[in-house]
Amino acid sequence: MKSRIAVFSTLIFPIVILAGCSNNPTPSTPSAGQSAVAADPLPSWNDGPAKQAILDFVKTTTDKSNPKFVPPEDRIATFDQDGTTWVEQPIYSQVLFIFDRVAELAPQHPEWKTKMPFKAIVTGDKDAMAKFTLKDIEVLMAVTSTGMTAEAFPPIVKDWWAKAKHPRFDRPYSEMVYQPMLELLKYLRDNGYRTYIVTGGGQDFVRSYAQTVYGIPPEQIVGSALDTKYQYNKDGQGVLMRDPKLALNNNYGGKAEDIYLFIGRHPKAAFGNSTGDQQMLEYTQAGGGASLEMLVLHDDATREYAYGPAQGLPDSKVGTFPQSLYDEAKAKGWTVISMKNDWKQIFAWQK
Amino acid sequence: MKSRIAVFSTLIFPIVILAGCSNNPTPSTPSAGQSAVAADPLPSWNDGPAKQAILDFVKTTTDKSNPKFVPPEDRIATFDQDGTTWVEQPIYSQVLFIFDRVAELAPQHPEWKTKMPFKAIVTGDKDAMAKFTLKDIEVLMAVTSTGMTAEAFPPIVKDWWAKAKHPRFDRPYSEMVYQPMLELLKYLRDNGYRTYIVTGGGQDFVRSYAQTVYGIPPEQIVGSALDTKYQYNKDGQGVLMRDPKLALNNNYGGKAEDIYLFIGRHPKAAFGNSTGDQQMLEYTQAGGGASLEMLVLHDDATREYAYGPAQGLPDSKVGTFPQSLYDEAKAKGWTVISMKNDWKQIFAWQK
Repeated sequence: MKSRIAVFSTLIFPIVILAGCSNNPTPSTPSAGQSAVAADPLPSWNDGPAKQAILDFVKTTTDKSNPKFVPPEDRIATFDQDGTTWVEQPIYSQVLFIFDRVAELAPQHPEWKTKMPFKAIVTGDKDAMAKFTLKDIEVLMAVTSTGMTAEAFPPIVKDWWAKAKHPRFDRPYSEMVYQPMLELLKYLRDNGYRTYIVTGGGQDFVRSYAQTVYGIPPEQIVGSALDTKYQYNKDGQGVLMRDPKLALNNNYGGKAEDIYLFIGRHPKAAFGNSTGDQQMLEYTQAGGGASLEMLVLHDDATREYAYGPAQGLPDSKVGTFPQSLYDEAKAKGWTVISMKNDWKQIFAWQK
Repeated sequence: MKSRIAVFSTLIFPIVILAGCSNNPTPSTPSAGQSAVAADPLPSWNDGPAKQAILDFVKTTTDKSNPKFVPPEDRIATFDQDGTTWVEQPIYSQVLFIFDRVAELAPQHPEWKTKMPFKAIVTGDKDAMAKFTLKDIEVLMAVTSTGMTAEAFPPIVKDWWAKAKHPRFDRPYSEMVYQPMLELLKYLRDNGYRTYIVTGGGQDFVRSYAQTVYGIPPEQIVGSALDTKYQYNKDGQGVLMRDPKLALNNNYGGKAEDIYLFIGRHPKAAFGNSTGDQQMLEYTQAGGGASLEMLVLHDDATREYAYGPAQGLPDSKVGTFPQSLYDEAKAKGWTVISMKNDWKQIFAWQK
């Protein structure tokens, strides 16, 4: 579908900031006692324009008497994952998976002790890891995620998942999900929306845990995808083999293209946090009628991270949110979510 | 995803039999008065092993006390289209669409009168059309189905749809659907199965009418797919342009690969009618547990068509069903549906 040349660039590349995560977790001040308004579907959201935009959108599109009513079959909401539904700093979870997997496989590969890029991981050389090229990542991905059947991969991810912890917060990744976004996913589903993850990350990687983490089934995960090949094994059984070639690069324009490929229509709501999501939001709005486009701005270094460079926040190679995207959002009526101001609580365990 | 070289071969190629459709419709003898058993969900199916296999499968997989119970989220059934849910002889409907579209566009292209392959269509030269090469079809497809936005294509298909008639039966294609398969689709859905079309035909072509004809939404149509490119038009608006490159060749092993890509798991039931569906059925069975695999054998020249060459039926370049596939079905416990014996009624209008 997409170029196989620009392989894993936006998917996996920004590991250069790997060594930059020295902040200790700083517990947020407890949020003011929630007044337990029974009807509030978004208790982790502060009152403000972001929360109001969501409530207005749902009210408008589910009210049959409203000219912008959306019939149930067209209620589709697409969410970017990394940086939108969970933390993406200091390193994408999938890159961490690849590094951890190399370390796990290393005893079977004594030659890796002296062979780059494996050597850097095996010896824990963070400076060398920070200099990995795209080619290095492709080599690492090939040995950790391909050359096996489609069935063999998810258990490997699940094993990793059970052990992996976020480098800064020292919590399992299942606890690194944004509580406000879990509430939003549920609120939309409760109102007849089908929620999709549309991620630059690996489709099969995300499918391995998405039902558990987000309540989203495999067919509603659209991501960057490797080619598979249907082959007959030595017993004459047909199997799908994972090939080290990228079939779908689900970033930038690829998100709009793949939404069309998988879903066949414009979403009514889309949520992202970076330039990789820009075209998905544009494509959503281009469907006409009522629509909701939101971008998460990471402006809370205390409770999560702060990066942009929109609004003068520090630049980052993970999930770049430039001022130009911020300006497009304002010009087009998209809503920018300030994590600092709009989210009462970010993680479920942060009180 | 798939090779872009074997472009439209199985999708569109078998037009060589175009001229071979000289049979006039022969009304079937009216079926014996249906005894209107209120509970029969499959009234167009004769009692027999095919109908029984369906009833047994649904009973088994929806009974919580049965060890082969299938939870609702895994109830996925995939249907080939051409030759499985509607007629594919004497020419795939999509090829007819392409030919009709060329004829419609011809007045704007006076040069086509002397330029092959257009000339053959414009002048109605069936002998020349029967000799079209793969390259010819690609050229025709490019001018009729690409170089436009994604939004521009479905209305063209719908316009054609409103006018097109089957060459032999002189009925709109909406009436060329097999009544027993409509009942089967509904019966499965009534029992919690999500029904997908998994077709070698063009995904966007089928999506244009599938909701109306089959009650199946766009996201449950998986087909051969052209590439689209997200581009900005002169007004700065993002649009998806249809590119004359095949992104997914959804035939043979491609069906298993694309089911994995789109749905992320093995179906529990799969229905086909040719070698192009073989791997889809194998992949379904490979999921383990209860599963249902069925192949439609076209053995009713009177009410529909008869072709194989399984069971000594005439060979055909559309929907080939060789004896080897028949043997595989028997060996693996797949059910072969005899249109002649298993279907009381084929089309809704045939009494």
